[in-house]
Amino acid sequence: MRVRIYYEDVDVGGVVYHTHYINFCERARSELFFSQNRLPIFDGYAFVVKSLQANYIKSAKFGDMIEIKTHLKGQTRASITLTQSIYREEEKLFEMDIVLVCTKGDKLTRIPDELTLQIPN
Amino acid sequence: MRVRIYYEDVDVGGVVYHTHYINFCERARSELFFSQNRLPIFDGYAFVVKSLQANYIKSAKFGDMIEIKTHLKGQTRASITLTQSIYREEEKLFEMDIVLVCTKGDKLTRIPDELTLQIPN
Amino acid sequence: MRVRIYYEDVDVGGVVYHTHYINFCERARSELFFSQNRLPIFDGYAFVVKSLQANYIKSAKFGDMIEIKTHLKGQTRASITLTQSIYREEEKLFEMDIVLVCTKGDKLTRIPDELTLQIPN
Amino acid sequence: MRVRIYYEDVDVGGVVYHTHYINFCERARSELFFSQNRLPIFDGYAFVVKSLQANYIKSAKFGDMIEIKTHLKGQTRASITLTQSIYREEEKLFEMDIVLVCTKGDKLTRIPDELTLQIPN
Repeated sequence: MRVRIYYEDVDVGGVVYHTHYINFCERARSELFFSQNRLPIFDGYAFVVKSLQANYIKSAKFGDMIEIKTHLKGQTRASITLTQSIYREEEKLFEMDIVLVCTKGDKLTRIPDELTLQIPN
Repeated sequence: MRVRIYYEDVDVGGVVYHTHYINFCERARSELFFSQNRLPIFDGYAFVVKSLQANYIKSAKFGDMIEIKTHLKGQTRASITLTQSIYREEEKLFEMDIVLVCTKGDKLTRIPDELTLQIPN
Repeated sequence: MRVRIYYEDVDVGGVVYHTHYINFCERARSELFFSQNRLPIFDGYAFVVKSLQANYIKSAKFGDMIEIKTHLKGQTRASITLTQSIYREEEKLFEMDIVLVCTKGDKLTRIPDELTLQIPN
Repeated sequence: MRVRIYYEDVDVGGVVYHTHYINFCERARSELFFSQNRLPIFDGYAFVVKSLQANYIKSAKFGDMIEIKTHLKGQTRASITLTQSIYREEEKLFEMDIVLVCTKGDKLTRIPDELTLQIPN
């Protein structure tokens, strides 16, 4: 998934604000569902972030076109672990491992079939 | 209501991103309710923005402490018009007139007593 | 320009947060430059928002694909007025008139040729 | 440092968007400087995030008042590691370890005295 860096993404330091990389990764996760005409929310079930570990390698700048890549690192019946990376052409800018758990209401639950995706390793 | 300008508020131009002034005004409207131990959402009723007219006078910068002032400009049974201004000490940076309407579900409705506030003119 | 509505765009009311429509319009203005391999910032010159008048017609929801359309309403040597509209298919959700002025440093200035674009009426 | 949860902080799931907790921690870091009448940017020197590891324990909701606590975990001549936690009254909602490095221009550098703070362990 490709994303452009806009005015709103850049902070007082002149580079992309650190949590926007993590936001871009969320957009890429949602697009995995949208690209299959599905929503990541279904009948009260939704994913929530359990933990994430992020490494900042290089900064993106205003006007840059970046690409987010998503790979499956592991899964259980109730959670999924992804590795998501952000590139500007061949250059890696950012990498994150993120653990998502499935909830219904406020309770952890098994991931229903409707929210199960094929994600490449 | 006073607000500090943080990293996230400043854009690539080095000044506060233009819609953050409008966000700060929303925080000030919500604080009118919170300061009375109420929420601006009640039993399915909520306010939505119908229109706004904003004038940008001077820019706020990183680290500035600004103040948002809210005055009642007019009201009907189903809408409220506010004038909200942002100051840095004596200097006016921003001014906005905003019209809010009350909705329940997707329908316009009369403002219930629970969402009626005393706001100074 | 088309934009998808993501998790981050929706607020506690379940619809797009009111200033995100204005942010989407900013992205569309920047894309006018990017699409010509230019930046909207040049040699210290940049555009800042002088005023805007926005009307909210219908709400966009999570997962919606919306389109931003930009038309020239007027221009002078130092300012430009645009009408920007947001549609979900045939349905108009939002419309805004926005006045931008050109600055260099903190001073108003004539728009340089490098920041002059052909925008349709 | 105390922060209120506003409309803009809540996403389509009805709870605070996952990266806003990380933004709140950034505000708390900046306030360490502001509270001493200093800025976290000095003469071209600034801190950038090198890595972070975040755990989400409970969700904050609209209107909540939360508190961010910052502790020093370690430091070197060019980096600082903090543990930042977010509480709603006695309840821990979020915890993050974050590594910041000092840069001047695009280069890593020793932290200058002007950006050195006393932070409790």
